Amino acid sequence: MCQLLGMNANTPTDVMFSFTGLATRADEHKDGFGVGFFEGRGVRLFVDHQSARVSPVAQLVKTWPIRSEHVIAHIRKATQGVVSLENTHPFQRELWGRYWVFAHNGNLVDFNPRLHAAFKPVGDTDSERAFCWLMQEMAKAHAGVPDVDELSRTLAELMPQLHRHGTFNMLLSNGQALWAHASTRLHWLERRHPFQPVALKDEDMRVDFASVTTPNDRVALIATEPLTTDEPWTAFEPGELRVFEAGTGRAAV
Amino acid sequence: MCQLLGMNANTPTDVMFSFTGLATRADEHKDGFGVGFFEGRGVRLFVDHQSARVSPVAQLVKTWPIRSEHVIAHIRKATQGVVSLENTHPFQRELWGRYWVFAHNGNLVDFNPRLHAAFKPVGDTDSERAFCWLMQEMAKAHAGVPDVDELSRTLAELMPQLHRHGTFNMLLSNGQALWAHASTRLHWLERRHPFQPVALKDEDMRVDFASVTTPNDRVALIATEPLTTDEPWTAFEPGELRVFEAGTGRAAV
Repeated sequence: MCQLLGMNANTPTDVMFSFTGLATRADEHKDGFGVGFFEGRGVRLFVDHQSARVSPVAQLVKTWPIRSEHVIAHIRKATQGVVSLENTHPFQRELWGRYWVFAHNGNLVDFNPRLHAAFKPVGDTDSERAFCWLMQEMAKAHAGVPDVDELSRTLAELMPQLHRHGTFNMLLSNGQALWAHASTRLHWLERRHPFQPVALKDEDMRVDFASVTTPNDRVALIATEPLTTDEPWTAFEPGELRVFEAGTGRAAV
Repeated sequence: MCQLLGMNANTPTDVMFSFTGLATRADEHKDGFGVGFFEGRGVRLFVDHQSARVSPVAQLVKTWPIRSEHVIAHIRKATQGVVSLENTHPFQRELWGRYWVFAHNGNLVDFNPRLHAAFKPVGDTDSERAFCWLMQEMAKAHAGVPDVDELSRTLAELMPQLHRHGTFNMLLSNGQALWAHASTRLHWLERRHPFQPVALKDEDMRVDFASVTTPNDRVALIATEPLTTDEPWTAFEPGELRVFEAGTGRAAV
């Protein structure tokens, strides 16, 4: 199974610590990785079809403090589609003058929707097909970029149509909010004042967040499996869609 | 003025040497840089709004041999739009299930076309506006991805409509071919067997391409200013559109 990592914060925050935790799991997930960072409306998208353990791009992401309010990362174990750059998550498209970044964990069976609009897959994964369909249906539902609550309602209507084709855990952001949907496995966590020292589950590494944050900072993390010990990660319910803004999440509807 | 660099080759080739030459010129072009690499249908797009002289991303591109058949690089001196990630070239969109990468050097005046289709600018530059308009007009002209010659004819019709608004030197690729249009300054060069040692114009650096190539390799370079001494760079005519495939270029129509 692939691994997802999302981060949403009320102030630009780096994900070096969490990404290191995720990349450690790349042993079993050697079919590429990717990470998208929003900086305002702009996006940096780093993808590689090498494992996050050896990729020079992963090394850059682990050591360069890219500060962002919305981050989506993915390490891949291929279920559909060959191992190639065009099949590597996250995927990116533009809609309504906003970039959208999407990553998926799971496997959709017999999902062949009619893609009659402006969004066509470049690669051959079920995931990119699902993303193009989501973009198409969102474009049909709204003439311009709606507010976050309206978008949440639209997404809440669309999720079950994907979910019924199989496992559909996903992260989606447009730089305003980050949406997370779980069909099987996804966990979330909110960090806020007072910050504590925490340890990565899979690597011998600790950070004292109190020393690198201010009392006003709020950070939400979303991950397939909890990345740290000593913190109260909460499992998503099956079918749950949550929306994260300014470092805090809520049920989307 | 910004600087453009394009590379088109018949076998995946790295651009570390040429990019180093380009980045050296970043002193006067400190408003960001970017480079897009096609690998098959996939794209790696590295952008940074720091100067290519100091950016960690530029350092990665200078030292990691990313092999590609189509490369588009840009270093920016802002004329329109603030210095931000979303205003950094190259820009990327998807059309007909193919990614398109575009970079522009110049300045378009009073260019405010009606963007009624699926391509909207995320930032606020004339360049991204021109790219969105090009994508829109190409989408109108063809139902699916046409062959390279048909696309060349379409582009040859569209270029003068941009050119008449000001300086429009541009590079565009979809991973099948690379198109280059000059309104003022652009040069091209083809390297093929027998390869010779060459020296960068702006940096004390030489490469003997004979030692890193095979006799079948063909590489075309397109750059605002010649990057090397001892090589026969050819200036584009004003209004000239050339298309490069498999390391060799021709007039587009």
